[in-house]
Amino acid sequence: MNKIAFTPKLVRICCLSLISIFTLSGVSAQTPAMEQDAVTVDKIFDQALTNGRCYPWLERLCFDVGHRLSGSPAAEKAVLWAKSVLDTLPLDSVWLQPCMVPHWVRGQAEEVRMLGKTKKEFVPLAALALGGSVGTSPGGIQAEVVEVKSWEALDQLGERNIRGKIVFYNRPMDPTKIRTFEAYGGCVDQRVSGASKAAKYGAVAVLVRSMTLRLDDFPHTGSLRYDSAFTLIPAAAISTQAAELLSKTIKEQKTVQVSIKMNCQMLADAPSNNVIGEIRGSQYPNTYITVGGHLDSWDVGHGAHDDGAGVVQSFDALRLLQQIGYQPRHSIRCVAFMNEENGLRGGKAYADEAKRKRETHLFAIESDAGGFTPRGFSFESEHHSFEKIYEKIKSMESLFTPYGLVFAKGGSGADISPLRPFKAVLSGYAPDSQRYFDYHHTADDTFDKVNKRELELGAACMAALIYLVDKYGME
Amino acid sequence: MNKIAFTPKLVRICCLSLISIFTLSGVSAQTPAMEQDAVTVDKIFDQALTNGRCYPWLERLCFDVGHRLSGSPAAEKAVLWAKSVLDTLPLDSVWLQPCMVPHWVRGQAEEVRMLGKTKKEFVPLAALALGGSVGTSPGGIQAEVVEVKSWEALDQLGERNIRGKIVFYNRPMDPTKIRTFEAYGGCVDQRVSGASKAAKYGAVAVLVRSMTLRLDDFPHTGSLRYDSAFTLIPAAAISTQAAELLSKTIKEQKTVQVSIKMNCQMLADAPSNNVIGEIRGSQYPNTYITVGGHLDSWDVGHGAHDDGAGVVQSFDALRLLQQIGYQPRHSIRCVAFMNEENGLRGGKAYADEAKRKRETHLFAIESDAGGFTPRGFSFESEHHSFEKIYEKIKSMESLFTPYGLVFAKGGSGADISPLRPFKAVLSGYAPDSQRYFDYHHTADDTFDKVNKRELELGAACMAALIYLVDKYGME
Repeated sequence: MNKIAFTPKLVRICCLSLISIFTLSGVSAQTPAMEQDAVTVDKIFDQALTNGRCYPWLERLCFDVGHRLSGSPAAEKAVLWAKSVLDTLPLDSVWLQPCMVPHWVRGQAEEVRMLGKTKKEFVPLAALALGGSVGTSPGGIQAEVVEVKSWEALDQLGERNIRGKIVFYNRPMDPTKIRTFEAYGGCVDQRVSGASKAAKYGAVAVLVRSMTLRLDDFPHTGSLRYDSAFTLIPAAAISTQAAELLSKTIKEQKTVQVSIKMNCQMLADAPSNNVIGEIRGSQYPNTYITVGGHLDSWDVGHGAHDDGAGVVQSFDALRLLQQIGYQPRHSIRCVAFMNEENGLRGGKAYADEAKRKRETHLFAIESDAGGFTPRGFSFESEHHSFEKIYEKIKSMESLFTPYGLVFAKGGSGADISPLRPFKAVLSGYAPDSQRYFDYHHTADDTFDKVNKRELELGAACMAALIYLVDKYGME
Repeated sequence: MNKIAFTPKLVRICCLSLISIFTLSGVSAQTPAMEQDAVTVDKIFDQALTNGRCYPWLERLCFDVGHRLSGSPAAEKAVLWAKSVLDTLPLDSVWLQPCMVPHWVRGQAEEVRMLGKTKKEFVPLAALALGGSVGTSPGGIQAEVVEVKSWEALDQLGERNIRGKIVFYNRPMDPTKIRTFEAYGGCVDQRVSGASKAAKYGAVAVLVRSMTLRLDDFPHTGSLRYDSAFTLIPAAAISTQAAELLSKTIKEQKTVQVSIKMNCQMLADAPSNNVIGEIRGSQYPNTYITVGGHLDSWDVGHGAHDDGAGVVQSFDALRLLQQIGYQPRHSIRCVAFMNEENGLRGGKAYADEAKRKRETHLFAIESDAGGFTPRGFSFESEHHSFEKIYEKIKSMESLFTPYGLVFAKGGSGADISPLRPFKAVLSGYAPDSQRYFDYHHTADDTFDKVNKRELELGAACMAALIYLVDKYGME
């Protein structure tokens, strides 16, 4: 394929009688092929915005299934639901792809309490056990709390000050990071590694400040990773308000005791499935383009933004291509991956089977950053001529300018990352990130937090990108 | 001033350990001046995101004052509130600028009912009188409804089919417009001109489908304009759900009667004020840069996005510049304009006094498109060398790339539009528009719909642009 130099065609100009708003400029020379592409992209967006299915699908997933942690009955209900949705579409095949998943259960609600000076009064702290955590003994744990904000501080305290105590990680997300994922990346290590690093010094449990930029009462759960070299100790997230209160009380009282009761536990791995739908390619049926999100969620809220949104957008992307009558050259699959949150078993199973079947994977894109207004796509690949490929990709960017998207190199998505060895080009759909961590992994990640148009625009963006990738290939 | 060729310096790269997201590329050659500017812009954003005041200010405006239609006691409370806020800042002067404003009162809640076939049952339709509408007689109006979707359809029906009836304008906003203001621009003519155009054919009242892309139960009010050549007839907006129901019922039953009771009325003009704060310029004290939003709102909800957001962002823009220790060369004013919604008397008073005092106005920017995540700025001017000026402005764009903004030519804002004859460059702050018309002019435009970070980013953007305009001038 030759390099194509796209330029925007259908620049949707914002003209207004009463309220003025900026217009897009920069319409330049066009070729008939580009015009055709702009028309097709436009059709995809029109379909998504007038006849999109992702929003009602998400509503059903949220209200009929609800949250759906890997291994839970709800996750299995979600698998059946996803298959039933794909079965309504005129795809060439729809199937379940088995995988074994971790099966962690929260048990009854956590009880985290800050004890008053007399040890008789107590203040409940809004908490959620971290996914994968061990429970406490039935009677719970009660111990003094040590607050730390860095690994250095933890190491300095050492065993002498930590043994027998609860370590409280209170390094907040940095609000000055414009992209909130960067702020998340700057503290999620506390949640992931905090338990074992504290256990190394003899801590009996850890509490972690929730990963959010808001001050509110929602604890944010998420996975931890134990280092088997150390005792497995219980770990829970507390809300940012609770973290502020605990920190303030430690400053005031010097020593503060907290009691923790959790009866979560890890059970044996359970069978589960990815859910896959496929349109067979007319020209290269054995070369694949994948679009996906993850079907599992944490065990609170609806898992609406994380990642019901990505699943329904991926399904709708295929439907939109069919709706405008596009016949793809490569085989295109939408995948509802299982177990992104605490194991990535679905993503691994998908790549494993692809390897076994010697499939060729051209391109994969994941939507797992929420159903917010579109801002761009990121691209990465282990392909030896990715630099050249990216030039070609970048030449498609102007077709997305009217929709407000920019292209950039960068990471893609967890579920598709096992496709790296296939030298596929991997892309991440990047919606606006400002509100994502308001809801991420909380009881507040519910359907009403998703805006219909913002969700639909995401489905359209991904369908449009897949159309271009399919039409022009990657080399 | 020489043309400055800015390039981005502090590109905030998004790096992530667990979740990948796109990074910004395009860092290129730098000059020390550009580096300095990037550092300053960065400081402004840091201040806004760590120490911003706009969000708590908006909270107070929403909860202590609430909605504040021109001429109402609440609007006067808002004026005092705004002055009291500016009085806490180390500005050089803070004052009220008088203007007379229209004084329309809604009276008791509207009653719009669709009558059943027997004329005894009725279905209430969620409605709000349009701002400026006359009321009905105390007994109300009851008449058959004629639905139209275009002016052509209205003209074709003509007096024969319209006299004595209620005209129902039901042309919806076009969901395929990516920028929702464009969709609004495509139907707001029904609200603004519908009453008189129907009165011309003898209609006794009009109902207008609410200007929103959502299907919900919130009626959206807004101003109408009567043509004094025709009878002034009552006009109300009904919610989109009510519009769908009414339309469906007309299709089913052929003739549908609706009863309307409204006792709104226009009173004599009332005195009010713009609220202005100023930092005196060190070098050009008589040349002005203005940043503003409008203080008045419709008489429902909190007027949070429209336009409490713009007011508090404008105030915070000045505070941010002072906070980073910037001493402006030109005089910079923040203005809380009165009466944007139904008269623009504040905007006119501001320009009138400027003319009287022979002020020079270099630049003005308005935030009146909601407190959503930033997308860009638009620029317009009647300056004879605006083309050249715009080139210079455009050269500053790359400094905003790390924050996701694009620059474009286009309309600015209603309140600053009377500054056009000053040949000033006028700019509109353009946040993401997807959610704006979910709330616009409704009881649902409340504080909780505003995201703290999105609001703060808007204040930072405007402060940063003002800093650059002040530093480099416009020519």
